[in-house]
Amino acid sequence: MQTVIWKQLNSEQQLQVLSRPAVNSSTDIAGIVADVVSQVREQGDKALIDLAAKFDNTELSAVRISQQEIEAAEQGLSEEFKQAVAQAKANIEVFHQAQKPQPISLETQPGVRCEMHYAAIGNVGLYVPGGTAPLPSTVLMLAIPARIAGCKKVVLSSPPPIAPEILYTANLCGVDEVYAAGGAQAIAAMAYGTESVSKADKIFGPGNAFVTQAKQQVSGDHAGAAIDMPAGPSEVLVIADDKANPAFVAADLLSQAEHGPDSQVILVTTSEQQAEAVNQELARQLALLSRNNIADQALSHSTAIVVNDLAQAVQVSNLYGPEHLIVQTEQARDLLPEIENAGSVFLGEWTPESVGDYASGTNHTLPTYGYTRTYSSLGTLDFMKRFTVQELSQQGLKDLSRAVVPIANAEGLDAHRRAVTLRLGEEQ
Amino acid sequence: MQTVIWKQLNSEQQLQVLSRPAVNSSTDIAGIVADVVSQVREQGDKALIDLAAKFDNTELSAVRISQQEIEAAEQGLSEEFKQAVAQAKANIEVFHQAQKPQPISLETQPGVRCEMHYAAIGNVGLYVPGGTAPLPSTVLMLAIPARIAGCKKVVLSSPPPIAPEILYTANLCGVDEVYAAGGAQAIAAMAYGTESVSKADKIFGPGNAFVTQAKQQVSGDHAGAAIDMPAGPSEVLVIADDKANPAFVAADLLSQAEHGPDSQVILVTTSEQQAEAVNQELARQLALLSRNNIADQALSHSTAIVVNDLAQAVQVSNLYGPEHLIVQTEQARDLLPEIENAGSVFLGEWTPESVGDYASGTNHTLPTYGYTRTYSSLGTLDFMKRFTVQELSQQGLKDLSRAVVPIANAEGLDAHRRAVTLRLGEEQ
Ligand SMILES: [Zn+2]
Ligand SMILES: [Zn+2]
Repeated sequence: MQTVIWKQLNSEQQLQVLSRPAVNSSTDIAGIVADVVSQVREQGDKALIDLAAKFDNTELSAVRISQQEIEAAEQGLSEEFKQAVAQAKANIEVFHQAQKPQPISLETQPGVRCEMHYAAIGNVGLYVPGGTAPLPSTVLMLAIPARIAGCKKVVLSSPPPIAPEILYTANLCGVDEVYAAGGAQAIAAMAYGTESVSKADKIFGPGNAFVTQAKQQVSGDHAGAAIDMPAGPSEVLVIADDKANPAFVAADLLSQAEHGPDSQVILVTTSEQQAEAVNQELARQLALLSRNNIADQALSHSTAIVVNDLAQAVQVSNLYGPEHLIVQTEQARDLLPEIENAGSVFLGEWTPESVGDYASGTNHTLPTYGYTRTYSSLGTLDFMKRFTVQELSQQGLKDLSRAVVPIANAEGLDAHRRAVTLRLGEEQ
Repeated sequence: MQTVIWKQLNSEQQLQVLSRPAVNSSTDIAGIVADVVSQVREQGDKALIDLAAKFDNTELSAVRISQQEIEAAEQGLSEEFKQAVAQAKANIEVFHQAQKPQPISLETQPGVRCEMHYAAIGNVGLYVPGGTAPLPSTVLMLAIPARIAGCKKVVLSSPPPIAPEILYTANLCGVDEVYAAGGAQAIAAMAYGTESVSKADKIFGPGNAFVTQAKQQVSGDHAGAAIDMPAGPSEVLVIADDKANPAFVAADLLSQAEHGPDSQVILVTTSEQQAEAVNQELARQLALLSRNNIADQALSHSTAIVVNDLAQAVQVSNLYGPEHLIVQTEQARDLLPEIENAGSVFLGEWTPESVGDYASGTNHTLPTYGYTRTYSSLGTLDFMKRFTVQELSQQGLKDLSRAVVPIANAEGLDAHRRAVTLRLGEEQ
C-alpha cells in the first residue's frame, strides 16, 4: 500500500489518487452478451440448457429447480450455519420492515387533497452469482426486502450447480421459483421470460462483466426489465485517527481486498505513523488468508492518504464517495453530519464492514464506482414505486382554477384550461 | 376514437389494443446526438454558441443568462400570471415538503444499531424544453423539489431565446444559474460541464427524441450524469361509469390529446352509451381548440374500451399502467386499493388532469410508456439518496459474531471472519 501526503499533492494529483480504474466494458463483451440475449429470446429454455452445457459445464434436465430439490438442500447444512442465517435474516427483516413507507395525505389548499401512495413492484428477479464459494448473503439481501415490499412473485437465478446454502436460504426467505441459469443468459431469461422462467419487471443482484452488461442491455430495452443500480468493483475507504488500532484497520482493508483483484482499498488517516503501522499489519495478516493472492493484487494498487485533520479526511471521503466507509476514530459519530457521499457507513472500532455484509441488518447492495453521488443503498423502497393521487371538491377546483387557467393560457394549452372551466360552467 | 368491447377480444387482441407505438430511437438520432455530445465535451461554450446558431437560429453573446436579464423578465408578465405561479408554487411546496424523509435509527439486536440517512444530491441540472409556448410549469415541478431536497446547486438550461415566464419562474424558485442551451447540447453541457455551465450530478426534465437520447447516452457514461427516468409519449387512461358527465370525460381526453400527435388516449367505460356520448363530445369540443390539428391526430389512434364492470376497468388500467389515470365514477376512491400501475391518479368528477399538471401540488413528471410498473412519480426523494449507518458495541459485535462467522466461512472469506474475530481476541 503506497502512502501519499494529501497536502503535498496539487488538485490534479489528488483527483488522480482517488481515480478509479476504467471498467472493462469492451465492445467484445457487449457483442457476446447481445448474442446471448438474442439466443435466449428466440430459443427460451433450449438456449438456457445449451448455454449451461457450454459455460457451466452442466447438463440440465430442467431449468427450474424442483421444490423437492430445494427442500432437500437443508440436509447437508450445519446447525451453526442455519442459526447464523436465521439471526442475519431476523436483523435484516427488522431494518427493512422499518423502511416500509407511510403514505402521505394532505390538503395543499382547502378542497385540494394530494396523496402519495406506494405499491410493490409486481414481479422481481434476483441474480446470485456462482463462483468458488456460495453467496447465501446475497440471497438474504435481495429476497428479504422483496418479500417485505410485497412483491407478488420473487424468482431467483444462479449458475448451476446451485449450492445447497443458496437453495436453503432462498426457500427460507420465501423465494417462489429458483432457476439454474447464470451469466448474461440468466439476466435475459428473467428480463424476457422463457417457458420455465417467469418474466420479471425488475432485476436485482451483482455479477461479473457479462452480467453487468446484460443488465445494462435489458434495462435499455422497453420490453426488457428495470435494474437495481449500475455496477462497479467493490471498494472501502477507512478513516482512522492516531488512536485507531492498526490491526483492526488492516483487517477491514483486507476484508475488502479479498473480494477481488479489482477491489479498491483506501486508507485516510491523520497520522503518518498510523499509515506505517497499518502497512505492517497488512503484511502480517495477509499471510494468514486463504485468498491472500487476490488480496495482495488488490492491495498493490491501494493507497494510504495522510491528511491534516478529520475534517479533511471527510472531504477526501466525500470526493471519493466510497461504497463502504469505515470510521475508526475516537468520536466516530461526530463525523456523520459531514458525510455526503457513501453507500454504508461503519462507525467506531467495533463495527467492521463484514457485519454489514452479512448480519447487522443493513443491506450490502450498495452503489460503487462513485455512484454514491446519486444512487442509494438498496432498500425496501427499491422493490416498490410511488404514485400520487389527487381529489378535488367542486369548490376546491374553483379556487384552484385561479392558478390553473393563467398557466394553461401561458402554455397555450386550451384543452387544459377547458377541462377546468367547462366543469365550472365558465366555458361550454 | 374507435370503440372495442373488451370481452369480445382474445388476449392477444387485448394486448394489441393496449400496445404503445414503437418510439423513434433510430440509429440516426443516436449518431447525431453522439456527435453533439462529443462536440460539447471537446469545445465547451464554443460548441454551445455554434449549435445555438445552427439549431436555434440565435446568436448568443454568452451561454449563461445574467442575473440582470433574469430579474428584468418580470416586467412584461401579468399580475394574474404571477399570482397563478405563486399559488401553484405554494401547493407544490406543501406536498413536496411533506415528502422529506425521516431518518431511521433502531437496534436490530442489542448493541447493533442500524440507521438510514438521507443526503441531497449535490448538483442538479434541470432541462426545460422550448417550443411554441413556454413551459413555466416544468420549472416549478423540477426546481421546487430540488430546493426542498437541499441540493447545493440547481442549474437550468432551456433553448434560446428563453421566454420571460421561464426566467421569472426559475428566479422565483431559487434556480442558481440559467443557460441558453437546448436539445442534446444542453444535456451534454450539464452532464460534463463547460466554461459557463456547471457540471450536474443528475439531470431532470422532459424533451424531444434528441434530448431523450442524450439523457440515455450521458447516463450510460460513468463520467456523465444520472437522469430522472426513461421517457415516452404522454398518455392518459380515463375510467368512466355510466353516470360520468361525457363532456368532462371528453375534456380530459382532449387535454391529453393536445400535448402532441403521439399522445396516447384511452377511455375505459362500463357503458357503451357512455363511449358513444364521449365520442360526440370529442367532436364538438375538438372544434373549439386552437391545437385541434394536434389533438385530432392523437385521437385518430385512441380507443374506447367497453368493459363488464369497474373491477375489469381497473384490471385493464393495471395492464396498461397509464402515466395519468382519471377515475370518473360515482365512488372513485373505492377503486384506489386495486390500482397497481399508474403515475398519478385523479379521483372524481372535479379532478381534471390539468390540476395535476400545474397546481394541485403533485408533480407532473411521471413515468410513461408502461414504466409505471417499476418507476415512481417524481418527488423530493429523487433529489436525494439514502445511505445506511451501523454502529456496534463490543458486546453487540460479540453477539453478532455468531451470525457473521459461519456465513463468512460458508462464503470462503477469511478476512471477513477475521475482521470480527481479531477484534474479539479470538484470532490474531
Ligand atoms: Zn465484503
Ligand atoms: Zn397535460
